[in-house]
Amino acid sequence: MIKVVKVGGGIIEKEDSLNTFLDSFSKIKGPKVLVHGGGRLATKIAESLGYKTKMVEGRRVTDKNMLDVVTMVYGGLANKKIVAKLQASKTNALGLSGADGNLITAHKRPIKDVDYGWVGDIDEINSDLLINLIENNIVPVIAPLSHNGKGEMLNTNADTIAGEVASALAQSHSIQLILGFELDGVLRDFNDKSSVIKSITPELFEQYKSEGLISDGMIPKLSNAFNAIKAGVESVKICNALKVGGHSGTIVSK
Amino acid sequence: MIKVVKVGGGIIEKEDSLNTFLDSFSKIKGPKVLVHGGGRLATKIAESLGYKTKMVEGRRVTDKNMLDVVTMVYGGLANKKIVAKLQASKTNALGLSGADGNLITAHKRPIKDVDYGWVGDIDEINSDLLINLIENNIVPVIAPLSHNGKGEMLNTNADTIAGEVASALAQSHSIQLILGFELDGVLRDFNDKSSVIKSITPELFEQYKSEGLISDGMIPKLSNAFNAIKAGVESVKICNALKVGGHSGTIVSK
Repeated sequence: MIKVVKVGGGIIEKEDSLNTFLDSFSKIKGPKVLVHGGGRLATKIAESLGYKTKMVEGRRVTDKNMLDVVTMVYGGLANKKIVAKLQASKTNALGLSGADGNLITAHKRPIKDVDYGWVGDIDEINSDLLINLIENNIVPVIAPLSHNGKGEMLNTNADTIAGEVASALAQSHSIQLILGFELDGVLRDFNDKSSVIKSITPELFEQYKSEGLISDGMIPKLSNAFNAIKAGVESVKICNALKVGGHSGTIVSK
Repeated sequence: MIKVVKVGGGIIEKEDSLNTFLDSFSKIKGPKVLVHGGGRLATKIAESLGYKTKMVEGRRVTDKNMLDVVTMVYGGLANKKIVAKLQASKTNALGLSGADGNLITAHKRPIKDVDYGWVGDIDEINSDLLINLIENNIVPVIAPLSHNGKGEMLNTNADTIAGEVASALAQSHSIQLILGFELDGVLRDFNDKSSVIKSITPELFEQYKSEGLISDGMIPKLSNAFNAIKAGVESVKICNALKVGGHSGTIVSK
């Protein structure tokens, strides 16, 4: 089974939590793929360069300057820092953006109510490239960037990439998607951090939603998880990013 | 024959010359590897971030802030821009830093007269990785970054990387190293841009040097070329970066 792990920008921004995460990630046995964010780091660098970050519904508006920032921060600073650290723990990591080896082709999001700028909606994942690397005992480390095939990079959400990569690999391999974030799992009671729901199915999800048990912030993450399951991913684990190599968290399944 | 091409930061900094270079690079038939610089772009971004660039004998002093800048500019901005543009011309490029797939291990340069900071002197090139990619019809695009195997990136000169990559590949394959720069080749008369020396051997090099025919700036480039030849590289072409796919330039051979 190949494990596709996603870690967010909040974790990788700080040296301490990044190290803890990578330590836990290193403990995952067997073939694996890492997809990382980097939003907070990008916001910081953008600010130092005098560019203002504009978010709409939690998504970054990416003008040409911001595209350069995310290209260098996600594809360079964050990605290479992670790869170098994994190499130090004898994990043969190799960093990729969506342009590298034509991994993720996308198109610029059409303007409806909001112009998100240079943001890419995914068209295709080149899973053959990932499988070739994995068969050579390489761990692909994917930055949240796609390309449009016309010479331009595009900014694409890391959760979306993780879901799509897992779904594409699921066409030929058994896949678990692991979504790491700051909590221990999906909570039954948002005020009680220990109230982790051990497992959830689409039916339970609908029931919990109607009972108001699941908070708004969790809904896109869970929808993403269910989409992956629908696309053939065996199971999705939503867990603490600092414990991705452990056994705790919420298991999402059919 | 595998062609290892080096292009400097001056060319890739400007959209126009980058496009012309990549167009010429795309015309090179057969397996190939690209090694690029990015120094001028790094200096610019560093300046915007309020970091001062310090050079000693043409080499960048790389403190921790500057290491972050070169990691993001070389490994992110420059590398991904090149890869995306090559993808648009149907060249299946894949960007690599020295940490990716453990491509280039190095050690921090010991402090003698000058402390260059986080600059790496190369220990080993993982040529198996490059050969695996090339056999899969992928064109590796290498940023001038190495790693120390202890979790840290290092800044390494692109000419040096190109020479070492060519030399490492020459152990198993027939290799031509192509060093692209702003002139049409090694000039007999620095004031006459058309006085390109068609071919040069170590003996001629010594003779021209003693006659004062070869200018100081050319000497490190030629020494690098002769080192590659000594290590088994078949020939080295020193030519205009905008014409790497053509037939002009100076051929360096045994």
